[in-house]
Amino acid sequence: MILTLGDIAQRLDLELKGDASIRISGIANLLGAEPGQLTFLFNSNHKKYLSGCKAAAVVLCESDAEGCKLPCLVTPRPRLEWARIAALFDTSPAPNHKIHSTAVISPTAMIAGDVTIGAQTVIEAGARLDSGVVIGAGCFIGQSTVVGTNSRLAANVSLYHEIIIGSNAIIHSGAVIGADGFGFESDNGVWTKIPQIYSVHIGDDVEIGACTTIDRGALNHTCIGDGVKLDNQVQIGHGTTIGHNTAISGCTAIAGSTRIGAYCLIGGAVGIVDNIQIADRVEITAMSLVSRSIEEKGRYSSGTGLMPGRSWKRSIVGFARLGEILKRLRALERRTKQP
Amino acid sequence: MILTLGDIAQRLDLELKGDASIRISGIANLLGAEPGQLTFLFNSNHKKYLSGCKAAAVVLCESDAEGCKLPCLVTPRPRLEWARIAALFDTSPAPNHKIHSTAVISPTAMIAGDVTIGAQTVIEAGARLDSGVVIGAGCFIGQSTVVGTNSRLAANVSLYHEIIIGSNAIIHSGAVIGADGFGFESDNGVWTKIPQIYSVHIGDDVEIGACTTIDRGALNHTCIGDGVKLDNQVQIGHGTTIGHNTAISGCTAIAGSTRIGAYCLIGGAVGIVDNIQIADRVEITAMSLVSRSIEEKGRYSSGTGLMPGRSWKRSIVGFARLGEILKRLRALERRTKQP
Amino acid sequence: MILTLGDIAQRLDLELKGDASIRISGIANLLGAEPGQLTFLFNSNHKKYLSGCKAAAVVLCESDAEGCKLPCLVTPRPRLEWARIAALFDTSPAPNHKIHSTAVISPTAMIAGDVTIGAQTVIEAGARLDSGVVIGAGCFIGQSTVVGTNSRLAANVSLYHEIIIGSNAIIHSGAVIGADGFGFESDNGVWTKIPQIYSVHIGDDVEIGACTTIDRGALNHTCIGDGVKLDNQVQIGHGTTIGHNTAISGCTAIAGSTRIGAYCLIGGAVGIVDNIQIADRVEITAMSLVSRSIEEKGRYSSGTGLMPGRSWKRSIVGFARLGEILKRLRALERRTKQP
Repeated sequence: MILTLGDIAQRLDLELKGDASIRISGIANLLGAEPGQLTFLFNSNHKKYLSGCKAAAVVLCESDAEGCKLPCLVTPRPRLEWARIAALFDTSPAPNHKIHSTAVISPTAMIAGDVTIGAQTVIEAGARLDSGVVIGAGCFIGQSTVVGTNSRLAANVSLYHEIIIGSNAIIHSGAVIGADGFGFESDNGVWTKIPQIYSVHIGDDVEIGACTTIDRGALNHTCIGDGVKLDNQVQIGHGTTIGHNTAISGCTAIAGSTRIGAYCLIGGAVGIVDNIQIADRVEITAMSLVSRSIEEKGRYSSGTGLMPGRSWKRSIVGFARLGEILKRLRALERRTKQP
Repeated sequence: MILTLGDIAQRLDLELKGDASIRISGIANLLGAEPGQLTFLFNSNHKKYLSGCKAAAVVLCESDAEGCKLPCLVTPRPRLEWARIAALFDTSPAPNHKIHSTAVISPTAMIAGDVTIGAQTVIEAGARLDSGVVIGAGCFIGQSTVVGTNSRLAANVSLYHEIIIGSNAIIHSGAVIGADGFGFESDNGVWTKIPQIYSVHIGDDVEIGACTTIDRGALNHTCIGDGVKLDNQVQIGHGTTIGHNTAISGCTAIAGSTRIGAYCLIGGAVGIVDNIQIADRVEITAMSLVSRSIEEKGRYSSGTGLMPGRSWKRSIVGFARLGEILKRLRALERRTKQP
Repeated sequence: MILTLGDIAQRLDLELKGDASIRISGIANLLGAEPGQLTFLFNSNHKKYLSGCKAAAVVLCESDAEGCKLPCLVTPRPRLEWARIAALFDTSPAPNHKIHSTAVISPTAMIAGDVTIGAQTVIEAGARLDSGVVIGAGCFIGQSTVVGTNSRLAANVSLYHEIIIGSNAIIHSGAVIGADGFGFESDNGVWTKIPQIYSVHIGDDVEIGACTTIDRGALNHTCIGDGVKLDNQVQIGHGTTIGHNTAISGCTAIAGSTRIGAYCLIGGAVGIVDNIQIADRVEITAMSLVSRSIEEKGRYSSGTGLMPGRSWKRSIVGFARLGEILKRLRALERRTKQP
């Protein structure tokens, strides 16, 4: 795939400074770009790297374009243009709108005319795949599950029965949606299973990462709002609700019956306990434990900073003595206040 | 599925207060219940929600039934009855006791007469599936692996060779049992693989969540006791033993050669290091790191509480100075004790 | 599989002390060994267990051999010999060098003559499997992906398109390589997807655990160096580089565009943020959060020690007041210094 810089400028309606006939073979980051590639300046602090950059051209904003010796595509929002330019060079396999002969499809499944279904996939009774849906190889689509228009499942995705996936979803390999929530009642220490009879409802424009798991509910549906983005290996417990456009980074674990607001940013490897509420626009930093509800938007953290092993050991000893430290401090204050 | 309240009372032998002919279409939680649904009062503190509740009837205990205006099913243990009532409304697909024609089954596999095997599943030489076993679509059952009576595997489960699964197991999609433990020996920084030649033995009545992984052992079997419940994305290292009826929440990582007692409750996203022992009836709160053996039952934690970002930064600075804080405290105490 | 102790000594060129005709049926650890088994003394402190040990013989080093009443195989490095001896007793199914009739293989895939391909596997157009490759059942090998000489994939592995796997890889079930990195740009809170058009390049002699996920890059390839060992449920973000011979334990999450050095040891359930550099030979203890670059080799940690619940609560209260504690300490010091 080769495009001229002029082609790109024209297709995406960007201002071009420099030679339009330059041939662009792909995109790359500022430090790694090779001749013929288009690069991006996302941060004015990195302007210094432009001088040594081997790229054929650079995408940047007006204020950074001044004095730039490379041919430029100028835009107020280089990161958004990145998304559009990358799409021009995307070599992901295109769907072929065919149903592979080895797919096992129930006669009662409802499959729109232009759906793509990969080899070895299994589609159970009453499932419905809407127009433009793409199902990768080796997937399992359970009984009466619905996959909305233009949603795409990569290979080896498992959807249990009665799941609803909205439109334009992207679901990556190894994801499992609708497994039983973790619900047991102890009868003298022996666990009785509580049937998880509700389902998972996923809105439109949701992306779900590889090996991410979303459990079905016991007394209400697990609900993922429109525009939610879940990274890999995220775990969402039964009956939990995620508000629209919230993004959750990899390996975060969210327990059951929790309500998370809209437009939240949840860092990687975060833990969120069950039965709490988190407001809209809350940001949680990586590896924090959220053990209580959060009522105000803002940024929240837990944990400690990284330290060399030896000094860390002194600090954890001190941490264990913090109750005592507070007492000794009070005693000193009392004593030194005496006349 | 519609049942009358009287049907439910009779089938489960519960005391009924109110109109037995009320038609119940399902169950739901107290706040979300709609007309026609049966709800539950698990906690007397939530009694206040009963007045605005739209449910047709409620399951509760004797002491909460007084004054309740909704028709009631009365039981000393509403949560246990929940399990039984939910089962009445469960629409999970029933096994059909057939072997799908696309399943690939070794001629030397031993398959009981009433087993259900889904499409595209592969069963290797010498594997044994006992009576009532249900294997979902796309599973892999390795050579000489045994699955005990009435155990059920959802779609896309992987069992390596020579694994033993007891009776009544439930194993969810994406689970992987019997992959090699993480065992290498460094030879000047280059890793030599130690063959993981032992297996995984799983007791009866075990549930294993989606994408949970249990590694095979190197010098002894990895053993999961009867009645153990593992949530999604749990990782169990090689040669580790989990005592009976222990429950482990999602995303917990347990390293190798560790022994965990019976009746433990291990929170989500906990880390447990290798080669330690944990007593019976130990409770570990979410996201704790267990870096040493625990000899006494009880509740244990590590980590810090959630804080707004700015004050958290002050605290982590203080944490890093805890060794110094203790020294300064001692110096002050010495100085102020002087006459 | 039965070998005499003499057979083992001869095959592996080890010094034998005792009866060469003893029959050895397998290996086991010191405390669990049964008659007929060979055990290992890895640590001189465990010498006391030898007297009660039921094993038929023991592998140990010269200095521990003195006074040992069991027949011995003597070697300077018992752990390295363990790897070689375990291989003698390994019952893992051997590849049969056949392509199963149910595998779906594109006519444009390039498959070496001696490759083994399991049932229900799907291999897309232009993929290349080199000599000696073994692909388990139910795998998906995407378009134009390359798997190098003698690499082995267990069942149900997913490789997206254009991935490069080096020689001698071992990839466990449920692993997903090449799913889209987690890249979005916010346009007033609504996420625009950034196409992840780069790939994943994996070196030689790499092991990848069950349900581990390695994302493809957006502006450069995600690169895993030669000899890297990744345990189960590890997550590697897009564009990240792992240096050669680094070992990463289970459930560790590494965000995107981070560079990790060679010969690092990264504990389980560690979190490493995006866009940082970690030097060679860095060791990170379990469950630490690495939120900044590490320039010096050495051992690093974060978090707090495990505590009984009640005292832990006092400590987390103290932690939240650490900013205040420092102020009070300064005030006391000022006051007590006054004459």
